[in-house]
Parts: sequence; C-alpha cells; structure tokens
Amino acid sequence: MDAVLKREAFRQAVVNTLERRLFYIPSFKIYGGVAGLYDYGPPGCAVKANVLAFWRQHFVREENMLEVDCPCVTPETVLKASGHVDKFTDLMVKDEKTGNCFRADHLVKDFCKEKLEKDPKLSAEKVAELKHVLAVLDDLSVDELGAKIKGYGITAPDTKNTLSDPYPFNLMFQTSIGPSGLSPGFMRPETAQGIFVNFKDLYYYNGNKLPFAAAQIGQAFRNEISPRQGLLRVREFTLAEIEHFVDPEDKSHPKFSEVSKLDILMFPREDQVSGKQAKRIPIGEAVSKGTVNNETLGYFIGRVYLFLTQLGIDKDRLRFRQHLAKEMAHYAADCWDAEIECSHGWIECVGIADRSAYDLRAHTEKSGTALVAHEKYAEPIEVEKLVITPVKKELGLAFKGNQKMVVEALEAMEEKEAMEMKAALESKGEAEFNVCTLKKVVTIKKNMVSISKEMKKEHQRVFTPSVIEPSFGIGRIIYCLYEHSFYTRASKDGDEQLNVFRFPSLVAPIKCTVFPLVQNQQFEEVAKKIAKALTAVGISYKIDITGTSIGKRYARTDELGVPLAVTVDSATSVTVRERDSKQQIRVNVDDVAALVKDVTDGVSTWADVLWKYPTHSS
Amino acid sequence: MDAVLKREAFRQAVVNTLERRLFYIPSFKIYGGVAGLYDYGPPGCAVKANVLAFWRQHFVREENMLEVDCPCVTPETVLKASGHVDKFTDLMVKDEKTGNCFRADHLVKDFCKEKLEKDPKLSAEKVAELKHVLAVLDDLSVDELGAKIKGYGITAPDTKNTLSDPYPFNLMFQTSIGPSGLSPGFMRPETAQGIFVNFKDLYYYNGNKLPFAAAQIGQAFRNEISPRQGLLRVREFTLAEIEHFVDPEDKSHPKFSEVSKLDILMFPREDQVSGKQAKRIPIGEAVSKGTVNNETLGYFIGRVYLFLTQLGIDKDRLRFRQHLAKEMAHYAADCWDAEIECSHGWIECVGIADRSAYDLRAHTEKSGTALVAHEKYAEPIEVEKLVITPVKKELGLAFKGNQKMVVEALEAMEEKEAMEMKAALESKGEAEFNVCTLKKVVTIKKNMVSISKEMKKEHQRVFTPSVIEPSFGIGRIIYCLYEHSFYTRASKDGDEQLNVFRFPSLVAPIKCTVFPLVQNQQFEEVAKKIAKALTAVGISYKIDITGTSIGKRYARTDELGVPLAVTVDSATSVTVRERDSKQQIRVNVDDVAALVKDVTDGVSTWADVLWKYPTHSS
Repeated sequence: MDAVLKREAFRQAVVNTLERRLFYIPSFKIYGGVAGLYDYGPPGCAVKANVLAFWRQHFVREENMLEVDCPCVTPETVLKASGHVDKFTDLMVKDEKTGNCFRADHLVKDFCKEKLEKDPKLSAEKVAELKHVLAVLDDLSVDELGAKIKGYGITAPDTKNTLSDPYPFNLMFQTSIGPSGLSPGFMRPETAQGIFVNFKDLYYYNGNKLPFAAAQIGQAFRNEISPRQGLLRVREFTLAEIEHFVDPEDKSHPKFSEVSKLDILMFPREDQVSGKQAKRIPIGEAVSKGTVNNETLGYFIGRVYLFLTQLGIDKDRLRFRQHLAKEMAHYAADCWDAEIECSHGWIECVGIADRSAYDLRAHTEKSGTALVAHEKYAEPIEVEKLVITPVKKELGLAFKGNQKMVVEALEAMEEKEAMEMKAALESKGEAEFNVCTLKKVVTIKKNMVSISKEMKKEHQRVFTPSVIEPSFGIGRIIYCLYEHSFYTRASKDGDEQLNVFRFPSLVAPIKCTVFPLVQNQQFEEVAKKIAKALTAVGISYKIDITGTSIGKRYARTDELGVPLAVTVDSATSVTVRERDSKQQIRVNVDDVAALVKDVTDGVSTWADVLWKYPTHSS
Repeated sequence: MDAVLKREAFRQAVVNTLERRLFYIPSFKIYGGVAGLYDYGPPGCAVKANVLAFWRQHFVREENMLEVDCPCVTPETVLKASGHVDKFTDLMVKDEKTGNCFRADHLVKDFCKEKLEKDPKLSAEKVAELKHVLAVLDDLSVDELGAKIKGYGITAPDTKNTLSDPYPFNLMFQTSIGPSGLSPGFMRPETAQGIFVNFKDLYYYNGNKLPFAAAQIGQAFRNEISPRQGLLRVREFTLAEIEHFVDPEDKSHPKFSEVSKLDILMFPREDQVSGKQAKRIPIGEAVSKGTVNNETLGYFIGRVYLFLTQLGIDKDRLRFRQHLAKEMAHYAADCWDAEIECSHGWIECVGIADRSAYDLRAHTEKSGTALVAHEKYAEPIEVEKLVITPVKKELGLAFKGNQKMVVEALEAMEEKEAMEMKAALESKGEAEFNVCTLKKVVTIKKNMVSISKEMKKEHQRVFTPSVIEPSFGIGRIIYCLYEHSFYTRASKDGDEQLNVFRFPSLVAPIKCTVFPLVQNQQFEEVAKKIAKALTAVGISYKIDITGTSIGKRYARTDELGVPLAVTVDSATSVTVRERDSKQQIRVNVDDVAALVKDVTDGVSTWADVLWKYPTHSS
C-alpha cells in the first residue's frame, strides 16, 4: 500500500511538472477539454520531434526503408478488408437510465481489484476466483463478461443504476467522404494499411526484390469508450510503423549478428504461464532456441531495444513480453511487445509481430490486385499440377442457372478433395459434391469434369510475402521517457525539492541555455555572440535575460531537461554547468559553441571536458 | 491555344514522371482510389520531410517560435466559436435525378470559359458579360449564383439533367467523439485554432511578453465537393501555420531591415482593379508607402519570399497578391497571398493575413477565458471610468424573478446609453429601458440605479493582441516546386527525352547515388566504404548495384533529382558527376564523402570543386 502511495505521489510530481512547463496541455482546455485529447506544448513538441528524428535515423535511414505518407481519412472498403470494420471493437455497457457508457472489462477489473484490496473477509476460494477473473479478463466472451457483471451485481460507478448487457462498440471515428453521404470512411486506426495497399508499387520501386521494409509516421485514431491513464490511453496519437516484407521461407537477417549478443529482459510465453519472472537472455540465444520465431523478428527486437535505451529508457524497466497463444491474432506467427514499466505498471509501447501473409492476402482477395512476390528459379523446375477441367456443356444441362456456381466450386477444390472425387467418379461413376455457395449437395457425374495431375514447367515461384511489423506508440514511449528521466533533489538551502529531467542530449528539447549573470550590455553582447556561434553549429538554445537569480534560472532549465547552461560572467570566458552533476567549468568565449556541440553530439563526454578545462566553484 | 496545349503536355510529362517514380501515389489505388486523397511515396516523402525541416529551421528556430502539436479531432464548440461550423461552406448543386453533387461556382465558371473559347458568334456585349461573371464569381451570393445557373440553362455535366438550387455544404469532415453519439466533432480545417485556444498558456510560457509567435505543422481536412486539379485541391493536406501575436498599437518588427531591400513581385489591390500587372517593389517601400499595412506583415512577406526561393521556386513566377476589399474577411486588416505560377495558373500557396483580434476575441467570448495581454504602465495613469451600480433591493421589489436579468442589462450598458439614462433619470425621474434578454421594455426609476463617472488609477493596459498569420499549404508548394524544377533534355544518342528535376540539395530526396561501374567485388567494397563515410557525415545516399549501363543509371538518378552521382571505376579514385551540367571530376576515394557534404550543404559550389579537381571525360 505504501508502494502504491509512493508511486501515485511520484506520478503526480511528474505530471505536475509536465503540465506546468507545457510539455503537454489538455486539448481545448478553455472549453473544458475533451477526454483523451492532449496537445504537445513547446518543450513536448521539441521532444517529440527529436524522438521522431532519431527514429528516422535509427530505422529508416540505417536500413534504407521506403518511407511513405498516406492520408488519415480511409474509405470503408479498405478497413473492411483489413478486418477493422468488423473486429476493431471494445465491449461497452450503458447506464440504463442516463445512457452513460463504460468499458465492460474496466468495470469488472475495478470490481475485482477493489474487492481484493478492501474486503478482508474474502474466503480463500473467492480470492482465487477474483484473481482468476483478472487473469483471463481479456479472453472473456461477450456473454461471459455480461454474466460476470450480472453475477457480481456491478452497477454504473457514478449513479449506481443498472447496466445494459455488454455489446461491441467500434472504436473507429466514422465520417463520410464527399458530399453525397454515400461513401462512408473512417479515420485510420493504424498507419499500416496505407503501406499494405501500396505493396505492389513499393515492391516494384525496390527492383522487385525481397526483403525490404516500408515505414510510416503519422496520426492514428481510436474513439475510446472512456479514456483513462492520462497520456497513455488517448483518442488520437502518433504511430511510427515498419512493415518489413520477407520471403516466408527465409526469415534470416543479414545483420542479425550485430544485435545477437544483446542481453535483453525477455518474458517468453511459458514463463508467464508458469508464473516466473522475465529474465535476461541474449537475443541470439532466444532465436537459436526457438523462443523467438525467427532472425528477422529477433533483429527488430534488438533494434527496438537499442532505440529505446538510447532515448533514455531504463534497460531494467524494459522487457519484451511474448503474446500468449490466445492473445495473439490467429494468423500471427509470433508476437512480442516491448513493455516499459512506469507508475501505471508495465505498458505496451512497441508491438513487434510476425503477421505472416494475412494482410496482403486479405487485400489481394478484396481488391482483386495480386499483392505477391516472384522468385525466378535458376533453372525451370517440373512440378506436378492439379488440373480440373469442368465440362461446361454437361454442367449447364444438369444445373441450368446454377451452372456458374458449380463450375467455380469445382475449380476451387483443393488437391485432397479433388483426388477423392476423381476416385469416386472412376469407381462409382458419380460423386456427391457440396456447393457451399448454393448451400446444397449436388451429384457430379463422370462426364461433367475431368480431373488429372500433370507435370508442368515453372519458371518462377509466386508467393505472398510475410510481414514483420514493429509498431511504435510514440506518445507512450515519450511518457515513459518522462517518468524514467525525472528525479527531484533538494535546493541549495534545502528548503525545497527541485525537479530535474535527465534527458540525453538526443532527446532534450533544447541543448543549452545562455544566461548573462547580471543585466548589462557587455554580458548581453557576449551572450548574443555565443548564440550566433551556437546557431552556426546547429545547436538549439535559449537565452534567459531575466534578472532572476542564477540559482532560479538553473532550476528552471533543469526542469526542462536542458543538459548544459552557459553563464556569461565575464567578457572573455564563461561558466558551463552540467545539469546532473551540477559541476562547472571555465571555458573561453570563443570555444564554448564547439564544446557544447561536442558534448551534446556525444563526441565528447562531460568527463572528457572536465579533464580538459579548469573546474569552477560558484 | 498552342500555349494551352504546350502547358498541358508539360504538366502531363511532370505528372507522369512523378507517378512513375512514386513521388506520389493516388491513395488506395488498388481499390479504385478516392478523389482528392494522395500518398507521398518514398521520394515524395523525403522531399516533404526536407521542406518541413527547412521550414522549422527558417521560421521556428530562427525566430524562437513556440511550436505546438494539437489533435486533428476537434469538438464542435471550438469550431462554432471560430465560425467554421456556420461559414466554412461551398455552394453545391445536385443533379435532380442521380443525386450527384457539383460545386455551383465551378459549373458557372466552366460554362463561361467554354462559351468564351468555343463560341465565335458571341456578341461583344455577351463577351463582356461572361468575363464580368468570371471576375466576380467568388463574390456572388447563393441567390445570384442560382439565377446564373437557371439563366444560362446549365445542367449536370455528365447526365444533362436539371440541377437543384445551390445550397451551402459544410466542408468539414464530421464525426462523433466518444461512444454516446452526443458529442459532435470535426476533423480540423486548419491548425490555427489549436494555437488560439492555448494563447493564455503560451503567453505565460513566453514570460507574459509580446510579441511572440507560435507555430504548428499538421494535417488539415476539407471535404471538397468535387476535387479537381490533382495535387492542388485535396481533401487532406499538411499545413504549416504561424500565429504571430503582437500589440495592435505597435506592429513594427525589429528585424524588418533584414528583408526591407528585397525586390519582390507585388500585386497590390489597386493594380488588380485597374487591370495592371504585378510589379517589383522593395518590400521596405511597400510598407513605408502603406501598400502593405505594417512592418510585421512586411517582414513575413520577405521571409516567405526567401523561404520559397531558397526551396527552388522561380522568383519570376512568384508574386504576392493583396486580397481585394471584398475578398478579405471583414475583421482582417490586410491580407497577401503568395501565389506561384504553374501549369494550372497562379496558385495560392501561402496566405499571410493580419487577422487583427478576431480569433482571440471570439474564443474569449465563447469560452469565458480572457485571452488578453497586459502592459504595465511606467506610472499608473488616471482614467475616467463609467460606474453603474444597480440597487438590487429596489430592482428586486420591482421586477421579482426578472431582477437578475435587469441587473445584468444595466451593468452591460455602453457609455452613451448609460449617460442618456442618467440624464433621463435626473430630468424625468425615470427612463424606459429595453432588456433584450427579457424581450421587453421596462421602466427604471431613479432609486433603482446610480450612474456616475469616476477617475480611477490604472496600473496596466489590458488588450487583445492582433495576430499575423502566415499559413503554408505544404502540398501545393511541393507540387509547384516539382513543376519549377522539371526539365527534359535529349539523351546522348538523341533518340529520347530524359527527365530531370533540378532540386537544390536542400530539397533533393537523396543527396547522392553510388554506382560501382561494373559488378565486381572490388568496386562493391569501395562503394560500401564510401557509403559508410557518407553515413558518418550524415548524407543520405543510395547504392545502385544493378548491372544496368551507367547512362541508364544516370538517367534514373536525374529523374529523382539527385544532385551528385559517384561512379566507382577504380580502387583509389572515383568519378563524381553533377546532375545539371553533367560535368565530371576525379576525386580520391578518401575525399569523396567530405566533398559531397560540402557541395550539398552549400559550403562549396560545384564551380569551386571544378576548380580544385581534375575534370573527367567519360
């Protein structure tokens, strides 16, 4: 309980600092705000731009990915094919009197948690039951969830009114494209579909070669039923997604050896089920033992690990959790979530899934455009091919208007079914045949179809690529980064706690501040000279010429996570202070821009410069 | 007519190249596409990222603007206050049989243009009439436009069916926020509103000081009735907007002298009305003569000019056109559009408007939060203040339940009305008073209110800032850039025309290509070594190891607008070729990355390096 309070207090301190310094702002605040919508204020916006620039560098440029940029407005057909129109839902209940809406699973979760925490008289049996419900909550069907709500007598949290049965609510924001009202559209729930529908063009652009990856950064939308957890569950957010297309028969990765030694906190399926903890495994070992399905998936786990830790995520609070068999989409070959621990618990921030050929097949089927890859054989190969030739004339006589559907059903037979029919036709002269489009069984006679196997020459293999998808929730990563970077320390005279974000330079919203110690023309001119030099080397900075005490100005800049502060206290040399150690050195005015650049670009460490320049005690 | 055909052919050549090389892709192409929605493919996406990065550098960083990032989903209240719910409309007509929708003004425009072009028997009078209609088209009311359609007998273009009367169609994509269906929302039609509603916080963040500017880059949406003109009129697009807040009594700009000498093609209101051409005026002169309303507006015109021309927009096909009096929103003080000439004519790409205090006042009124600035006086000043003190007890006796509304109406009186009432009360002992909230006139007696003027000390001026808004349509700028950068030249053997984009390095999707001349291990290793060196200095590149002829590979890279090509033709030195001159130099393998960086960063020109290195003839 003490830990819970401490966690809440910590979160409150972080969130207060973030709101006060405009890292974020509840959107449309002067109108009372809208749940689940947030603005990035100036420092938050800079942090986000830095995170995205690093993402582009670390993934897109490093791997020569094909970056695209597709619209948010998406027509219904596309999202029907992807399954979102039918399946992108949460179960909802309504207060039967007020009509207020709630997520059914949230209510059951809250009920169980509260019982477990606050009811000391619970029997051991009941405790076990409630814990079990919490564990399987995500897997409950609509009827099971309804039964729990009724069974536990759960009512609306605010009014205590009775609740409706749960029913699925589609989480996409719906709209209408064009003026007619006849073209339904949605705001995309992910950026991935824009890449899938362009597969054919992108494959061609890549010289018809596999593997290759496409990437996209953009807004995505989920009309959450009742957003909670502040910045972690929002209705509009920035996704950065990679779709790496690969031959399903060869998921090796040429650069796997570059990450294989990384010792990463992994939480495989078996360990979750048997109640064990996540443990460190070199990713090379996880792949070779089959814990992780293939090298490409393993490579991305390694790259994601490097990305997050270089941003400043604590490696001991970052784990890769494998999806349970039930949790994973039926088509997925394997799926790992990068989860980051923060005051809200372990939060899914990156999903890394081998989605097999599901998406490309679905769009091939619905659009009629073949989203496939080709592999030329070195030599043509002979293959045995099933040849089904319906005799249309006989079928027409027998089935009249239904002829077309019977023909299609015959041609669609798989090898096993066709060979059984062939055997029946040869032995009995006819065969029963279920035509599902007609919803009836018909009798096929020997003269109506010929079935044979023939040897054919093939020059190329045609196949649907598998896709491995690392998908990054940028806002969640940034929030976790805030928590992992935040700490407080006593002020000089010990009378208050000061807030600090220990952002790496890569992430820091600005790289340095410049303070003229006192307000006079000479110091301000030196400050301007330094500012100009910083601009010339491309370092973002802020000049603070307020007359506030230098201690207050340091505190203000620490709270924004600015790594270095330059105090102008003479005309020839200045004091440079490092944020976390508070150590200060004396640097010549003409050298300061180059020094700031070296340290913030990571060319030199602070330890290096401490060695080189005289330290300064204030 | 010849010019028209040439323009069409030019456009077709540009658009074909853009589509073939995936600069853009019609969105959801495999499903037949959606009018007005386009994807940026890999090179287009890189160009867009470069344009946005330069925008951030040129505006946000250079001026220390406060960048924010707000959601696209916006609740109705906000857009009701801004006027978009009521006024963001186009006039639409419907085919009375099929229900197909058309923009009313487009149909009238097409009719007039076709008549003028194709009917040689038109009387001089009729010609004048049609030309007049074209000139005033944007100003026609719904009834006038309807009368034109009826009068000219205009029918649906496809079916020739009769058309409905025109009616306003709101161009915002509507949606619903949350599950209840009771919170209407829209996809934002501009990013500006997100900044206005945050004014109070941003002003505080800026130390409660004016002027300051906020900026935002993001998606905006317009549900066009029938999108035409390809990439120029789309339903979803990226805007980059600046809201520069300034004291309405002081619109000077400290850096105006930095742009005042720029000689810019200006098209003032008077010259448009009197049928003159745009002419070059130094922006300093335009401001001092009052053609441009104020220095800040002039400063942004200059900065926008520099931004566009540095991107590669032809300065002779870029003009700044002032809005006509009628064209301008009633609250605007002045408004200039940066228009770029392309094959579609002069296209508005940046709007630079002095919107006065309109937006902040509208949100102050609707939200109840004062979006104002303060200026402390050096010394407190004495001001005469109107003081209205209703005597609530007497008013309660007289008006019972209506007392509150009478009190509010009395307190809300303007000076003139109040002084008239004071005079009437003093002379007649009572006054008639119209309480609009009660919709009736009541009699106010002398004992019910005291009205006086008193001298009060004021310590600060409270005022609503003016806002000057440069708003950039990024997609339009990029499309015009494509046209301005495109040219064709004969191939070496003269049998075909090759396409080239002469992008400045700043814009080019990649900065250089690396070609091993022939496929062998030695050359490929040199290529990899160069690639590594390019990565180290942060230059984007592409290696092309296909065995295609070097001429074809050059053509391919010219078509993407890549400035430099490095051909590996020995183990120690390579050939570097410049795209437009096709000149080639010999450079040592170890020097090539630094050379490419210097040239593409603009540190050296190609002329500089031609001087330094031996030229190479292939």
